[in-house]
Parts: sequence; structure tokens; C-alpha cells
Amino acid sequence: MISKKIKGFFYGADYNPDQWNKEIWKEDIRQMKVHGVNVVTLPVFSWAKIQKSEDEFDFSWLDEIIDLLYENGIYVNLATPTAAQPAWMSKKYPDITKTDMYGRKYKHGGRTNFCPNSPNYRRLSKKIAKEMAENYKDHPAIVLWHINNEYGEYCYCENCRKNFIKWLKEKYDTLENLNKCWYTSFWGHTIYDWDEIEVPSALTEILPGRLGGRDGTNFQSMAIDYRRFMSNSILECFLGEAEEIRKITPHIPITTNIWGICDKLDLFKWGEECDVASWDNYPSSKDHPSLISFRHDVVRALKGGKPFLLMEQTPSQQNWQPYNEQKRPGVMRLLSYQCISHGSDGIMFFQWRQSAGACEKYHTALVPHVGHENTRIGRELTQLGEELKGLEDKIIDSKIESKIGIIMDWSNWWAVEYSSGPSIDMTYIDRIMKYYKPLYDLNIPVDIVNPNMDLSKYDMVIAPLLYMVEDKAINNIKSFVEDGGTFITTFFSGIVDENDHVRLGAYPGAFRDLLGIWVEEVDALYPEMKNGIVVEKELNMGKDVYDCNLICEVVHSQGAKVLGRFAHDYYKGYGAITENSYGKGKAIYVATEPEEGFIRELMKKYCDENKIKPILKTSEEIEVTKRIKDNKEYIFILNHSKKPQQIDLEVKKYKELLKNQVLKGIINIEPKDVFILEEY
Amino acid sequence: MISKKIKGFFYGADYNPDQWNKEIWKEDIRQMKVHGVNVVTLPVFSWAKIQKSEDEFDFSWLDEIIDLLYENGIYVNLATPTAAQPAWMSKKYPDITKTDMYGRKYKHGGRTNFCPNSPNYRRLSKKIAKEMAENYKDHPAIVLWHINNEYGEYCYCENCRKNFIKWLKEKYDTLENLNKCWYTSFWGHTIYDWDEIEVPSALTEILPGRLGGRDGTNFQSMAIDYRRFMSNSILECFLGEAEEIRKITPHIPITTNIWGICDKLDLFKWGEECDVASWDNYPSSKDHPSLISFRHDVVRALKGGKPFLLMEQTPSQQNWQPYNEQKRPGVMRLLSYQCISHGSDGIMFFQWRQSAGACEKYHTALVPHVGHENTRIGRELTQLGEELKGLEDKIIDSKIESKIGIIMDWSNWWAVEYSSGPSIDMTYIDRIMKYYKPLYDLNIPVDIVNPNMDLSKYDMVIAPLLYMVEDKAINNIKSFVEDGGTFITTFFSGIVDENDHVRLGAYPGAFRDLLGIWVEEVDALYPEMKNGIVVEKELNMGKDVYDCNLICEVVHSQGAKVLGRFAHDYYKGYGAITENSYGKGKAIYVATEPEEGFIRELMKKYCDENKIKPILKTSEEIEVTKRIKDNKEYIFILNHSKKPQQIDLEVKKYKELLKNQVLKGIINIEPKDVFILEEY
Amino acid sequence: MISKKIKGFFYGADYNPDQWNKEIWKEDIRQMKVHGVNVVTLPVFSWAKIQKSEDEFDFSWLDEIIDLLYENGIYVNLATPTAAQPAWMSKKYPDITKTDMYGRKYKHGGRTNFCPNSPNYRRLSKKIAKEMAENYKDHPAIVLWHINNEYGEYCYCENCRKNFIKWLKEKYDTLENLNKCWYTSFWGHTIYDWDEIEVPSALTEILPGRLGGRDGTNFQSMAIDYRRFMSNSILECFLGEAEEIRKITPHIPITTNIWGICDKLDLFKWGEECDVASWDNYPSSKDHPSLISFRHDVVRALKGGKPFLLMEQTPSQQNWQPYNEQKRPGVMRLLSYQCISHGSDGIMFFQWRQSAGACEKYHTALVPHVGHENTRIGRELTQLGEELKGLEDKIIDSKIESKIGIIMDWSNWWAVEYSSGPSIDMTYIDRIMKYYKPLYDLNIPVDIVNPNMDLSKYDMVIAPLLYMVEDKAINNIKSFVEDGGTFITTFFSGIVDENDHVRLGAYPGAFRDLLGIWVEEVDALYPEMKNGIVVEKELNMGKDVYDCNLICEVVHSQGAKVLGRFAHDYYKGYGAITENSYGKGKAIYVATEPEEGFIRELMKKYCDENKIKPILKTSEEIEVTKRIKDNKEYIFILNHSKKPQQIDLEVKKYKELLKNQVLKGIINIEPKDVFILEEY
Repeated sequence: MISKKIKGFFYGADYNPDQWNKEIWKEDIRQMKVHGVNVVTLPVFSWAKIQKSEDEFDFSWLDEIIDLLYENGIYVNLATPTAAQPAWMSKKYPDITKTDMYGRKYKHGGRTNFCPNSPNYRRLSKKIAKEMAENYKDHPAIVLWHINNEYGEYCYCENCRKNFIKWLKEKYDTLENLNKCWYTSFWGHTIYDWDEIEVPSALTEILPGRLGGRDGTNFQSMAIDYRRFMSNSILECFLGEAEEIRKITPHIPITTNIWGICDKLDLFKWGEECDVASWDNYPSSKDHPSLISFRHDVVRALKGGKPFLLMEQTPSQQNWQPYNEQKRPGVMRLLSYQCISHGSDGIMFFQWRQSAGACEKYHTALVPHVGHENTRIGRELTQLGEELKGLEDKIIDSKIESKIGIIMDWSNWWAVEYSSGPSIDMTYIDRIMKYYKPLYDLNIPVDIVNPNMDLSKYDMVIAPLLYMVEDKAINNIKSFVEDGGTFITTFFSGIVDENDHVRLGAYPGAFRDLLGIWVEEVDALYPEMKNGIVVEKELNMGKDVYDCNLICEVVHSQGAKVLGRFAHDYYKGYGAITENSYGKGKAIYVATEPEEGFIRELMKKYCDENKIKPILKTSEEIEVTKRIKDNKEYIFILNHSKKPQQIDLEVKKYKELLKNQVLKGIINIEPKDVFILEEY
Repeated sequence: MISKKIKGFFYGADYNPDQWNKEIWKEDIRQMKVHGVNVVTLPVFSWAKIQKSEDEFDFSWLDEIIDLLYENGIYVNLATPTAAQPAWMSKKYPDITKTDMYGRKYKHGGRTNFCPNSPNYRRLSKKIAKEMAENYKDHPAIVLWHINNEYGEYCYCENCRKNFIKWLKEKYDTLENLNKCWYTSFWGHTIYDWDEIEVPSALTEILPGRLGGRDGTNFQSMAIDYRRFMSNSILECFLGEAEEIRKITPHIPITTNIWGICDKLDLFKWGEECDVASWDNYPSSKDHPSLISFRHDVVRALKGGKPFLLMEQTPSQQNWQPYNEQKRPGVMRLLSYQCISHGSDGIMFFQWRQSAGACEKYHTALVPHVGHENTRIGRELTQLGEELKGLEDKIIDSKIESKIGIIMDWSNWWAVEYSSGPSIDMTYIDRIMKYYKPLYDLNIPVDIVNPNMDLSKYDMVIAPLLYMVEDKAINNIKSFVEDGGTFITTFFSGIVDENDHVRLGAYPGAFRDLLGIWVEEVDALYPEMKNGIVVEKELNMGKDVYDCNLICEVVHSQGAKVLGRFAHDYYKGYGAITENSYGKGKAIYVATEPEEGFIRELMKKYCDENKIKPILKTSEEIEVTKRIKDNKEYIFILNHSKKPQQIDLEVKKYKELLKNQVLKGIINIEPKDVFILEEY
Repeated sequence: MISKKIKGFFYGADYNPDQWNKEIWKEDIRQMKVHGVNVVTLPVFSWAKIQKSEDEFDFSWLDEIIDLLYENGIYVNLATPTAAQPAWMSKKYPDITKTDMYGRKYKHGGRTNFCPNSPNYRRLSKKIAKEMAENYKDHPAIVLWHINNEYGEYCYCENCRKNFIKWLKEKYDTLENLNKCWYTSFWGHTIYDWDEIEVPSALTEILPGRLGGRDGTNFQSMAIDYRRFMSNSILECFLGEAEEIRKITPHIPITTNIWGICDKLDLFKWGEECDVASWDNYPSSKDHPSLISFRHDVVRALKGGKPFLLMEQTPSQQNWQPYNEQKRPGVMRLLSYQCISHGSDGIMFFQWRQSAGACEKYHTALVPHVGHENTRIGRELTQLGEELKGLEDKIIDSKIESKIGIIMDWSNWWAVEYSSGPSIDMTYIDRIMKYYKPLYDLNIPVDIVNPNMDLSKYDMVIAPLLYMVEDKAINNIKSFVEDGGTFITTFFSGIVDENDHVRLGAYPGAFRDLLGIWVEEVDALYPEMKNGIVVEKELNMGKDVYDCNLICEVVHSQGAKVLGRFAHDYYKGYGAITENSYGKGKAIYVATEPEEGFIRELMKKYCDENKIKPILKTSEEIEVTKRIKDNKEYIFILNHSKKPQQIDLEVKKYKELLKNQVLKGIINIEPKDVFILEEY
């Protein structure tokens, strides 16, 4: 339960009452009740309104609206407004606005336009957080703190440079150590004095757009350190506010809404500092549903599987996509249940009332420009609100159980995508999705895991492209296999240590004995090229030869069993898939990127071996997930397709909670519809 | 008549005698006479030559060439050379060179490299204009003033910021009003002191390339204001010079040559300040002829239909296109007559003699590098000069009459193309062309009109994508319909007021009662998607279903008659085309972007209803226009195709003026040929 | 012989011992011996290690490794480490780091990040060169100096501006002359004081990306002068070091490794100053082999045909291509022999031991990350080392003889690619390759020549797109033809003088009388367009009509014989190919870009006329070249294809040197295999 005050799902939206007059506030309350809204987030962007100058704080208007909400049974997710400092502040304290990678100092404008190492920003953001906490510490409406908004902008100014050096001193202690870890013997980059260190930017070591549009760098270790430092600097901003708040309202949980699965911040570290994980889900209408599921699973992982909160989604239309489709009828509901089925205990929207001006005015809201609720979208929102009320006893606080962990790691993400060679197409999330999606298709639940976590609860752990891996994580993974686990990893894994130094000796460095192989060469294929995997008969797969591409490695077995071999080119006959016994477990290596069908068969094989079963067997266009509470299982069935689909419930009989019907045998589900089944 | 001194067409070119010696001047005069040149423009880029330092003015060489021209019967379009300040001036007064959107201060170089708010530029450009006016006030050669050259570069420097604030104070009076109109409650952007205002740039509120390559912005109202301010700042530069000149030579008209249909300047405001409208026509050889016709019609609109002047075109080849084709034989003549047929009383070229150096040396000129007139292009120029002399009595000062106005508005252009959502493909000129071209194909003349103009002379007014519209314009349009006019508008029109604030209540805000509809949703389609329009039988069109794409709106009729309905998706059956009776007139709404064939049929329907007839019925590859003088009609027939074409003149008999022949019945016109018919 | 100390081929690599400990040094020596390495390049990037502060020089570690190498029979190509200054130096002397074209001042980072006009860089780079020369002047290991590394970065700072002005004063003497040569009468750019001159940059006269991604400019003459100046400034850096070194070790030759065929430096001027030409060959695996051959031929030309040195290539995989393929088995050997067959007397690699960190760690090396030589690539390297030893007596110091020169000129390159019009596709190297490749396909050797060189040794000279040409070169070419030579040139040649001023009168200016034609118009075709060449019967080619595109000129013969005519458009029937008798020779003009088949036939025709014969007749996928020494010929046969190929040796009998076999008649050559034949 996110807050004891709200027993059911959080259902509400970002609310910007300062854009509207008080007559409209009343109408807002009326419509909130129509939709069953029980919580709103505010005042996300009202710093300038609250603090007109350094010494003037005015909470009166905020008091008034919060009281009004509370009187009407609506709680408040209280936001600190620090994502956009007032114009007077940018003017008075020029250290606040950020400097970009090209050395361009920004002036006031936009949002998240602050340097995370600006002393004045740090001081003033703590001050406003403290003032708010003091002001609202006793207000019964407050159920959650929402610090800042969608953190994630880097800065490259002189204050950042100074703090970077300080951070480096703490991390490396001596310049000798720093020079070694940064490999500065390359290109004669030895640092003899801490002050010689520059931040890696387009004016020093960053090569913008060099890698298929992503930034390259001359010194990966330096560039990755800067990301670690920046993630940490921004986290310090969060913590600065959180500390002030926790002193005053230790009983109220704190969150910050994550933007997508942000590559700028090491979210596992952020998860440790938040009380509740929450995020903003803005998929493109072209994103495959499995990608959205993956993102939910990442967010759920941040607090170790505890229910999270969907902080923002759009009721229908976004405004910043190139082409902003309306969500088709049923899609908003479908995506909301997808979110809940992956562990959210709330559905919140951006925003309550659609703005009349500025750049987000064509982002749909719960109250559209027409001003009333008698619209298609309005009706869908009312229905969802009602449905959620009926589910709260069963679903709230339920958990998701999985026997499979998929490893994700931010330092690895940065390292992979800064790598100069072998291929610019070697992006990280796409590689994870190659393994996530087949399991999604099979309706087998997975957890996203950090490589240093306790893995013993899993039967299988999959680590796509785990290129950078610390000793500690290596040992963790080895113990998991020794104890009987099944570990699957891919090409170019285990290659470097946390400093992005190659683990010399032989590829795949860290995992060589675990996998029982030696990789002699790593070949990169042009996008139009492919190779094939000739499957050994014992695998008993659907086809004899599967396509593969991206990377093909020349693998020598040194104990591992070869399950598939390359079909072409000078490494024809060399192992493409190997399996090695290690302790009581197995370690499987996939030395290329096979087509989806192959990976699906491979997942089936090892799930079978580990007795991991699908929740239900369905067509791939149906998503099935499960939440569990008090030993009761709630099966979510989501039809993402445009066609009605049939599902075989086999021998069991279920109660369907949304339509309150009993189901058994072969059932039909309409396009975009959702079933929630409880065994009957 | 542009000038009483030149009874016929202006025929000439930009002339840069300062690139050549006096021997060549004599040869220039000889060849001007061969081609029938009667006017040249100079000295467009000679500021550095005239003014070697702040206090040295030397007009002697200019006096000499102007005298020589005049002695030989050639008049002068006298240019102020202020489009390119001298290098010494950029050095002496660093405020002059511009600062770009990224905050980069330019150094001397290029042209139009001046800040329009530079005090020194303003002072010195007025000074040279005054000196020139004093020097040439009594010279009989001068027939026109040509101020500057192709204005249109924006600046983002501190002087611009200061003047922007001044301009804003005048516009908004109070900060309270500015904050309201800029909607600064969004993202906490409240301004508490005028000096907190920054110019919208890439360092503040502009998002370069965000919208399909066009710049986005966080605050549309601020960004549109900056365009209004910049257009006005540049116009003040023009007016600064014009004022000095008008004091001294009130009898000589003033123009400035517009570059294309420049989106940087609100040309309707510029039209008010020029005595003659003139422009530079540099189509790509891939531009459809209708686009060129549209641009001519825009320029004609700037002075309310008065004859304009084509100031520049190339005799054959441009140099700055990616691929610079020669104009095929006949094309230069064809494009010249196209220009005249849309209202120009002159044909001028860039430039007289082809430069031997620098970046425009491969732009063809009347005197090519070979140096003589015995070339294909030379012969075409001589022929055109002779033909024009034969036409001057009939055509000069004739007008174009149209019963259809198409609305175009610069603030709307800016607002449409800054809009974040619903679709990046929602560009303005393309939308206008969707309606302009079918009328062009039908040989029905149109005027381009400003939404605040008197519309009573028109039977039909078409307003494609009139998204931003002021109250005054709404009333103007409503009066037009009340009085019996037919008004046609499209999706996403009437949505915002002049501050880019949504007109709350229901879409299409401003036009809801006029159109008798409510638009519930605005859906944006991906480029590869389409929907269909099922046409009601009463429309009696060529097909039952037409394709449509880009935007599809969910339209509820509230009194309007539905003429066509969507064929697919969740809004299948909802109105795509509606017609509403309003006063004595009709208002038609097109809630999507239909294929060309549909719009052509729609135009035919309402032209028929309004008894608007084609000048002649021809194939679409033939353009037919008409100029009228003293109740005599001169019909221009232009064959833009590569094939001979037949035209049925029906019952009338005509004299063809160019070949001096009598034509009737079915006639043939050769590829690229031109007929000018007078009833016989 | 590059050095008398090494009788055979230079065989070795860049060596960075400062990245490794001394245990590894010993292993390095062992493996060097395995591969037969006889020379290594060092210490390319060790400035920071050698010079820890301005007054501290420490050569002890370098002494130690050089001694160790020498004791083991391995020589040293001694590099000055000036391509990457130490961080302390960038900090202490801010004038050193460069400023880019947008005015952005760089901070320490990367490499080649120095301003070539920085007084401190010049002083300190000379100082380190002198110190190194002093320290190693008597060391017997040193066989060659390698100054800096891959020069070629431009700067746009105030020091560059000052030196540019100085350079201009020397070149032009007076401002009057400069204004004339820069054509500053255009756009009123007259300079009245030297200090008014700005460097051409994105803030002045350069238009980044304007021309199909290449930079455009307003003033070609100014922009070309800046390239000449920059090439010269960088050469002065080289000469500054070379001068210090030559004073101390006049007996040791000096080189610098050229990066590709760098467009930033006028390599013919650099060739004059180097004792040995050397370069780094990093083709994309998609480059056609003929392009690599061309680049070798360019480098050979720099020292007038003397053997050059391949300084760097990768044993297998690069890291900075988008997709870094492994070189397939045999390819490294094949490319090495291709290099030797074009005149190299050495094969060196980047690098000896693969780095464990930073951005080049996935660039393969002679010692891979696995650390031993028992790899596919290791075996290929050992084999090549052995083979080369067997060839040294015959091949070292042998020469290549050619009867055909193809003109290449850097100023022309710059001028062509800065030209605004007629076509952005008019790139220079691609135009040269249109003529180079057919001769390559025919196994006819060519030399690359500078237009001012003595051409009398050639029978044919081909000048593709020789747009900019000085009077001296014109006379040189005319003399060549007068004396009986065959000269072939193409469209848009002879147009401008060295100031990029059009040679007025008639195109093709400089070559009009030589070619006996007048080009009236130059038409540019869109990429999707084409025209045809109707071939005169006497040419007796394979087809009657060949395709052509890019440029089509309207050519009037004024004495020349027309050999082919355009097939379409308004210039149908005009000459596309002409031949003119001039003195005892012939001058051929190709007024368009024909398809490859046509140019091959044309080359055959004029080779036949000049009795120039292929070395061998083979399929196009076989490359055949020849080196000659002491009147003995060594024929290299390279099978670049993926298939075995047959070759007819006709009547001769040969000894094949690599496999030591006797060959005659029709022989087979395996894919990627190489034969070196000596007449038997």
C-alpha cells in the first residue's frame, strides 16, 4: 500500500490549478468525483508562483486548493516545484542554468534547465522543499511526496568540473590510480595534477553522433565515470530535498517520477533512495506492447518487486510525437491494466485539465478543451475509475512471482553504447528485448535484476550483452550456476571490468571458465548481411537452420557442448550456441544474434528443463500475467490485437472480475479487451 | 504604371559595373540595346566602394555609369547598398554583425549579416540612404528606389533583447498582461521584472529541428511574438531608409525585393510600406508551375492587386540548387509570361553580366562568360525584349479579377508550424496549395487575401488550416457568409486566438457556430496511413470513396449537413465534409486532407453554385489566366507541358498578340509556348 | 632502400610499451621474432610520459626498451610524440588547443588538438624533437624518423587569423591585389586594412554542409587560400621539428604518416619535404580494390615514384567503422601484396599489442587480447613475415613504370568541391576514379601526376575535371600534346585560374584551342536523370549508345572531330566526345560522365593508338601490376574475388616466387591468393 490513507488504487492526475480561476476549481472537483479520482499531483511547476523572490513564500492559493480537494475526499501527491526555477532566480544566480556539451551556457527557459552542481540551485531547492514540508506537515491530504519532475539533464560547466574532480578524488584516491583506471597511457593523456582534468564533452573527449547517432568518446572509462558522476550529482539534488522533507514528515513516503527508462540515471541507485518507484509511460503508438511491459518490469525491479506507481500517462493523445494518434477505443484501459498487471498499484495521468496555452496544449487530459466529461475519452475514464474500485481488495499489494531474472545494468548500458567497435548497431535495450520478448510471447513472467542482487530465487538468469561486469557480479553469477541455476548470456559479454578495461587472457574474459569456451574473433556484420545457425539434432527445434546476424564470434569449445554451428563464412562449423556444465548448473552462450524463432525455441528448451511453465498458452498477440496475494492468483489476459482471440483455459474454471462472469474451456476475448481471472 | 518615365514593361537586370572596367561598360551598353533593356538595378552591393570610411563618400564612379546609362536611354532602379555593410564598419562597430540562435556572434562576412536592432547599423544605413537621395534627387535616370536586398535574417543579441522588451512593453503594457498572454503559468515561467525576459533562442525556449526539421518551441506565444518583433525590426530598418529618401525624393516610388515568399517577414505589413511590390522568383526546376503562380498571386496581393514587379529571375541556370539545370528552350520566356499573366508589369533578371569570381559565378546572366549575345539564351532574351514592346499598350496597368479569395496569414503560418502536435506534417503552404492547385488546374483565378481585408468582392473565400484567427477576422468572415458568401475551411481551423491560446468550449472554437459542428477529437495519421471519404450521393462526384490522410477529426454535426463520411476506423460514419447554412451564405468544413481529385470536385461544386466559370477549359497542363484593362480581356495560355496540346476556344474568335494571328475553334499550342488572346 | 640498416622490407608495427609492464616487454620481443618483425614505431603518443613538466625530460624508459629491441635485432622508427600534447601543457598554454569553425575553443582532450599557429605549440614541439634527436642521435637502432602522426586538423583562432594575414601579405603584397584576386567587388567585400580580414569560418564566409554535406563558401578564393595557408601552417609544424632533427641526425631519413589521401593537406607539397613517403591504409571493407590501388599510387607519386612505406594497416579488424568486419582469411596478405605491388617497401601495422583500454581497444593488433600468436591472424602474420624475407632481394628498390599519367591537384580538389554550381555531385576523387578504374581493370599501370610535373615520360595524360588550372600547368600540358602526347580531359575543365576566377572568353577557357571546341552551356542532371552518347561508327565500340549523366555540355566543335553525340534533350546531336589534333598530339574532350563501359572502350582505343598494353589480360576481378629492377620484371597477380580464377599466361613461362613453382599456359589462382611471377 503506497499510503495507508488510500486503500485502493491511486487514480488521478497532475493538476495545475494555477492555470485556472477558482470557478473552474469547483468544476474540477465535480468532474474528479465523476471519474472517481482520489489523488492529484501538485504543484509540479509552481515555484515561481510560490516564491516570487528569495524571501517571499506564498502558499495561500495552494492551501486553498489543497483544502478544497481534501474536503471533497481527494488526496494530494505533493510535488516540490524544483524542475523549473523561477526566471528571477536564473537571473539572480547565473550558476543555476546549465551548460551543454558544446560549452553553450543556457539562459532562463524550458524546464530541467539547472546545473545539478550549482550551489545556488542546491541551496534554493532544499529551501523550498523545507518550506513546503513545514507548511504541509500536518495536512491530512498529503499521501506522497513527488520530488522534482523527470530528472535527467546533464551539465558541463565549471562547477560540474570542480565537483567531478572532487568525486574522482574520492573514487580513485591517487592520480596514479586514476591514470591507471582511465588508461591515460593511451594518447599520452597522463594527468599530473587534479586540476588538469576536464569534463568529457564535445570540446574534449566526446564525439557527438559518432556511433550511429549516439555519442562516441576517446576514453570510455572517463565518459562512463562522468555518467556515474552526473547520475549521482542529480541524485544528490533529489537527496538534498528528500533529507529536508524526511526530517519534517518522516511518515510520508517520497518518490520522483522517472522519465521512461532513462539512460541518463542509474535507476537501481535511485530505487534505493526512493520510498516508492514511479514512472511516466509515454510509448509511441508504434512500440510493441512487450517493450512497455519490459519498462514496467524495470520500474518494479527498482524497489525489489514492491508495487510501483504509474505517475503519468496520457488519456489519449500525446503532443510531442511526430504523429500523435488518438488512443483507439479501449486502448487507454488496456494499457492501464497492462501496467497494473506488471505491478502498479495506481493509474495516474498527465494531466487533469488540458492547458489552453504553451507547448503541451494538445496533450489530452481528463478535462479536455471542450470542458466536460461527455466525450468518448471521458466515458472511458469514468469506466476505468469504477472498475478499479471493484478490484482494490484483491489486487492492491499483490506481487508478481518469477523464476527467471533478466540482468540489466546501467554501467554496462553506458559501456556498450560508448564502445568504438565492433558494431554501431550493438545497442543494449534492443539486445535485452531479443530475450525478453520471446518470454513475453510465451506468457512466462520475468524479473529484471541487477547483476549484484541475490539470484538464488531464480531458476534461470539471462544476461544479454553483459559486456561490462565487476568481479563481484561475476562471483554472484558463478555461485548461482554452481548452485544449480541456468545462466544464458550472449556475444561480447564478460569482456571488460568496471573501468572498461579488457579482461586479458581470452574472451569472454569473466565468463570463460563458466562457459567453457574461448572466443577467438568477434566479427561484425553489415545490416544487409546474415549468417545461419545449423542446429544440432538433439535440440529438436522447428527448423534445421535459423538466420542470425549483427555479431558472429569464432568460438572454440573448451569443454562446452556445441548445440548449434555457423552455416557460412570462414567460421562455418564453429560453435554458435554452446552449453557448459558448471557445478550443479549450466551456462549457455549465444555467440551471435539469432532470429526471434530460434530464441523462442531456446527459451522453451531451458524453461522446460527448469519446469517453468507459461501462465496460459495463447497466441502471441495475447499478453498473460499474474499477480498473487494471500496465495490467490489473479491472471490478467490482455488482447493487444485488433482481432477477437480464442484462449483455452484448459481444465480450470475461473471467475472473471471485471465483468463478473464465470469462464471455462475455450473463451473469446474481444480486441483490446481485458480479463482478470480468479480461480473459481 | 510603376514609373511614368517607362511606359512599357520594366526589362533589365541587376547591374554590378564595379566588377568591370570601363571598356566593358561600353560593351554592356551595346548589348543592353540589343536586348531592349530599359532599366537596370544598381548599386546593390557597393556600400564598401561608395563609403570607404565613415566620412568618405565617393559617388563619382556611380555618377559616371548612371550618366552613361541615361545617355543611352536606360533608366536606373537605384538600390541602397545596405544589405552588406563594409568590412571596416563591422570592425569599427561590433554591434552590427548578427548573433545566431545558438548565441554565436558572427564576424564580418556574407551578406545580410547585420543585426536589425544594431544602433550603428540603423544610423549608418539611414546615412547612406540620405546621401544617395541627396546625390541623385535630380537625376532623370532614376525611376525607382530598391532598398536593401532580400531582407530576412533574424538576430538574437543583447540589443535585440533590449528592443524586444521595449516592443513587449508597448504591446502588453503590464507584466500581468504579458504573463497571461504568454501563458507563463505553464512550467512556472512567470516574469516579475521586464528584464527577466530572454529572447526565445536555442539557449532558452526554441527546440531546433524538433518538428520534422522545423524549430519547435516551449512557448508558442513568445516565439510567435519574436517573429512579429523581428519582422517589425527589419521593417524598421527599411522604414529608416525609406523615411530619409521620401523626404528628399517624394516623387520616386520605393520597393524592396522580397526573397521568395519569405516566412521570416509578415509580408502583408511590408506591402503597406512599399510603393511597389517586387520579388525574386527562383523556383527549383522541380516546383510545379502552380506553386510559382501562387507566389506571384501572393506578391500581387501585397499592394491589393496593383501590378507588381518581378525583380529577379535567372535567364537559365541557378547556382545554389543542388542540381542546377539549364532552363530548357522556351522556359525562360514561358516563366516570364506566367509572371506577367499574374500581374507583373516588368521582367528583370539577376544579373546583367555573369561574375568571374565568388559564389554566384555559375548563375547565368544576360551577358555570359563568353561575353557576347550570340547564344541560345541571348537569342531568347532578345526575342522576349522585342515581344514585350509589342504588348505594353494593352497589358501595362491591366488588372486581374477574381471571385475567389484564399486566405493567407503570417501569424497563422508561424503558429501552425510551431504547434507541438498533432502532426509534424501539418505545414501551412502545402495546405494552401491543396486548394490553390485544383483551382489553378481549372483555370479559375484566385486572389490571396488577408483575413482582415474586405471580403465583400468575393463569392467564395477559402481558408485552409486557419488555425490562429483573431476576433476581428472571425467577425469579418462571418459577415462575409451572412451576406451570402461561401466559406470553406479545413481541419484544425479556428482553434486559437492571436496569443495561441485555445478558444475553449469546443473545437473549432472561432468557427463553431458558423460551421454548425463540434469536433470532439483530432486524430493524426502516420504518413503511411490513410482513411477514406464516403461521398453522399447528392454530391454526385466521380467516385464514391476518396482517400484522405494527415488529419481526421471526429465531427459531430450541430446543424450542418454531412456531405461525406469517414470510411474506416473508430470514427467511421462520422462527418468528414459538412456544409452549414449561415445567414445568406454557406460554410463548408473539410475535416481531413482529401486526395486532389476530391478537392477538385468540391471546388467545381461550389464554383458552379456561385456561377464562377473557368476562363477556358483545358488540360491541367495548360495554365490560363486573364488580365483586364479598359474592359478588354487578355487571355494568357501557357503550355507548361512537354507535349503540344489542343485547346477548344469554343464559339469565340481571338487575335493572338504574340504571333499576330487570328485563332478560333480548336487550336494547337506547342510545348512551352504562350498565346495571348484578345477577343476579335 | 628506406634505410641501409634494413635490407629487406620494413615489417613491424606501432609499439606502445608505455601501456605495458616490463614482463610483457620480454614477451613482446619473443613474439616479434616469431613474426619476423624487424622494426617498430615508437613512442608516438608518449609526450606526457617523456616530459612531465616544461623542464623535466625522462627518456630512461624509452632508452631501456629501445636498447632491448636493438639487442634483439629490432630497429626503431623513432616518432616525435607531438600529435598529442600533455594535459599540463594545454593547461599552462591555452593558445595550444584548437578553435573550430564555429568559434568553439577546445579544451584538453583527444589528439591532434593543437593550433598549428600556436607559438607555444611550435616552440615546444621543436624542443621535444630536438631533445629526442640529441638523445638518440648515436643510437644504432634508429632507422627512420616519424614526425607527429596523421596531421590534418585545421584551426580558426586569433593566432591563425594573424598568421593568415601575414601569409596573405606575402602572397599578395598589396590590398589592391588581394581585393582583385579575392574578387571582393562581389557583395561589397573590399578590404581597406589588412586587419579587417577574418578567417573564413562558419561565422564569416563558410556555409557548413551546404553542398551535399560538404561545406560551401561565399568566396571560393578566400576559402581555398585558407586551405593553402592551413596546409602550409601544418607543414611548418612538421618542418619546425624536421629542421631541429636534421641539424642533429642529417643521415636519418624523415617521414610522417599520412592519413588516407587527406584532403586537408596539399600532399605534393608535403612530399617535397619528406625523405620517405608513408601512409596509413584503412579502407572500408566496402571500398573497391581499385580505390586502394589509387591511394597507393598517390603516395608513390609524392616522392616521384620512389618506394614508399605502408606505415599502418590493421591485421584484421578496425574499430571506428560503423561495422567492423574481420578481414577474411587471406585478405590481410592480399592487401599487403597489393601495397607492395604499387611500390611499398614495407608493411607495418597499427599496432603491436592490442590496447586493453580506451577507444582503440577493439582495433586488432599483432598481439591480440588473448596474448599469444596461436590464432588465425597470428599465423597469417607469421607467414607474411616469412614470405617477405624471401622476396627482398628482388623487390626492394624496384620501380613501377607507366606510360599514363593521371593528373591530381589539391587546389583543384578544393576549388571543385567549393564550387557553388552546377552540381553538388561533382566531387573530385570520384571523377578521377571514373578514369582510373577502367585502366585498373585493364591491368594498365598509371602514375598519379601533378599538373606542373614533367610529363614527357608519358604517352597519355588524363585530367578528369581539371577545373582550376594555372597558366604554367596549361603550358606544360600543351607542350606535352605538341610533342605528340595524348591528352584526355572532361567537362568543366580549364574553367578557372588559380584564384578561382573564370577564364573569360569561352569555356573551356584554358583548353579551348587545345581541344578545338567551344562549350556554350553546362547542364547539370538530377541523379535520376540520364542522357546517352551515340557513338560514331569509326570508334567501333561494343554498343551504339552509352548512358551518361551528371553533367552534359553543349559543345560546339571549332576544329575538333566529334566522336560521340548526345542522344536526347535540346542538345541532342551536339558533341559529347571530341578529338582535336594539336601539334604532334591529340586532345580529347569528354563533355559528360559516361558509363564505365564507355570509358573502358575509350581507354582501350587510346592505349591501342599509343601501343600501351595490359601487363596481362585477365578478368576484372584480378589485379595485375609490375615492379621492375635491374631490367627484370616482377608481375603481381592478385585475386580480389571470392572465386578461383583462370589466367592465360600466353606464350611465356614464369617462376612464381611465393610458392616457388613454375607456371605457364592457363593457370588457376585461388580466391584472395597472390602470385609474383618472374620470367623463367
